[in-house]
Amino acid sequence: MTATPHRCTFRVYYEDTDAGGVVYYANYLKFAERGRTELLRELGFENTSLRDREGTIFVVRRVVADYRKPARLDDVLEVETAIRDVGNTSVVMDQTISCHNYVVCTVEVLLVCTGPDFRPVRFPAEVKQAFEGIKRDG
Amino acid sequence: MTATPHRCTFRVYYEDTDAGGVVYYANYLKFAERGRTELLRELGFENTSLRDREGTIFVVRRVVADYRKPARLDDVLEVETAIRDVGNTSVVMDQTISCHNYVVCTVEVLLVCTGPDFRPVRFPAEVKQAFEGIKRDG
Amino acid sequence: MTATPHRCTFRVYYEDTDAGGVVYYANYLKFAERGRTELLRELGFENTSLRDREGTIFVVRRVVADYRKPARLDDVLEVETAIRDVGNTSVVMDQTISCHNYVVCTVEVLLVCTGPDFRPVRFPAEVKQAFEGIKRDG
Amino acid sequence: MTATPHRCTFRVYYEDTDAGGVVYYANYLKFAERGRTELLRELGFENTSLRDREGTIFVVRRVVADYRKPARLDDVLEVETAIRDVGNTSVVMDQTISCHNYVVCTVEVLLVCTGPDFRPVRFPAEVKQAFEGIKRDG
Repeated sequence: MTATPHRCTFRVYYEDTDAGGVVYYANYLKFAERGRTELLRELGFENTSLRDREGTIFVVRRVVADYRKPARLDDVLEVETAIRDVGNTSVVMDQTISCHNYVVCTVEVLLVCTGPDFRPVRFPAEVKQAFEGIKRDG
Repeated sequence: MTATPHRCTFRVYYEDTDAGGVVYYANYLKFAERGRTELLRELGFENTSLRDREGTIFVVRRVVADYRKPARLDDVLEVETAIRDVGNTSVVMDQTISCHNYVVCTVEVLLVCTGPDFRPVRFPAEVKQAFEGIKRDG
Repeated sequence: MTATPHRCTFRVYYEDTDAGGVVYYANYLKFAERGRTELLRELGFENTSLRDREGTIFVVRRVVADYRKPARLDDVLEVETAIRDVGNTSVVMDQTISCHNYVVCTVEVLLVCTGPDFRPVRFPAEVKQAFEGIKRDG
Repeated sequence: MTATPHRCTFRVYYEDTDAGGVVYYANYLKFAERGRTELLRELGFENTSLRDREGTIFVVRRVVADYRKPARLDDVLEVETAIRDVGNTSVVMDQTISCHNYVVCTVEVLLVCTGPDFRPVRFPAEVKQAFEGIKRDG
């Protein structure tokens, strides 16, 4: 992989919408997480195997979400995920959720690598290396 | 407690609704489970302590849901839960979700008591006794 | 299309699971609805255009769900949807959610075609025809 | 009401948790919205009546969520909501979700008052007045 952001797409179903006729604000974070999970999978890592083999999980420590334009039922959303910063125990990802070429929302996420007790631990070496390999301008 | 059904109420928020302007069909099962959990709590049992102390969890094996009339944003739903049948490892509950005195939906649930491996085990004796104590016509 | 059931697949993400380590029971109904929506889409119909052009929506009137075996994080679920019965205003669909070739749950759904006031109306003729065209043994 | 933050409490059910054994990160935003909705209700406003009578809805434009410590099944969460800033078409609320006297997460929300087309409009006068009446140091 290059530094090109990772992209995947998801359909909006009834479950994602609310009585305002648009996607419920918390549900964009579900699409964002699916995007991060698919990025990890493409890098060769799966949440369950990281947990079962390495004893590590990724915990969201901070989210900044800017909602630009609502998405609606039957829309196809593209989730773009890029790595901005990689530390020893944490990573910052920039995510953009788009639809028909306009930005629906942007999500900045600080993830921390932790053990089962939710205390920070160092990334498994191959995870850190993989993140650095696709970091923007990296 | 007598054989009177257990009752509790929950407000409908945006999260529960969909683009049809009504509560999303799967979300009524959330209200139903909150009702079952509160019934258990009133009987003196909590999901986490049953799991941690007894090693048992309640698993839904079968649901029959009849949707009569939609509920909407800001409605207050009353969840009524009654015990219909109690076996050694399973229980059948009849639940009615109402709003303003009309029935929104009825939910019949078959729950099985299992160990952490999801295999059926006998109810802890005091749970079975408590269920029998409030069983309809029991 | 033939009478072969419609199939599509969906990944299980953290959002779908609960503290029991498995998919939350109500969330299987989300996967089922995605499957029905994709069947409709393959037949040439979309929820939003049916609503906006025909003034009709599909409302779930009854669900019978049998939970056989739990699905877990990172599993890929296959949703199989077949038409069992088609009436003038309602349709019964049989759905099977599978994983690695075992059945996770089966869902039988009675859907009613309604106007915006949730009162039953006849299916648009081309919808009924399409359903009959793929009905089992049809 | 005084400038004291608004408080309300909600139980954590299975629906709110994920396979990590804790509340799913997006679901804290549901608790936060319930808190904002109850603050509005205490001020005399309901989402549905604002929409139906005034033609206005509140749309989330920006969320900053800091996750401090996970909440778990059966926990009771207290949602505290305070008004930080009130403009003509927008309001900033500071929310703190706590459990057993420790902070689970803080949520800062920028809400915009819009018409049905999601374009900003001025707050109804009595809404703005009510917000200013409970603004911190206001």
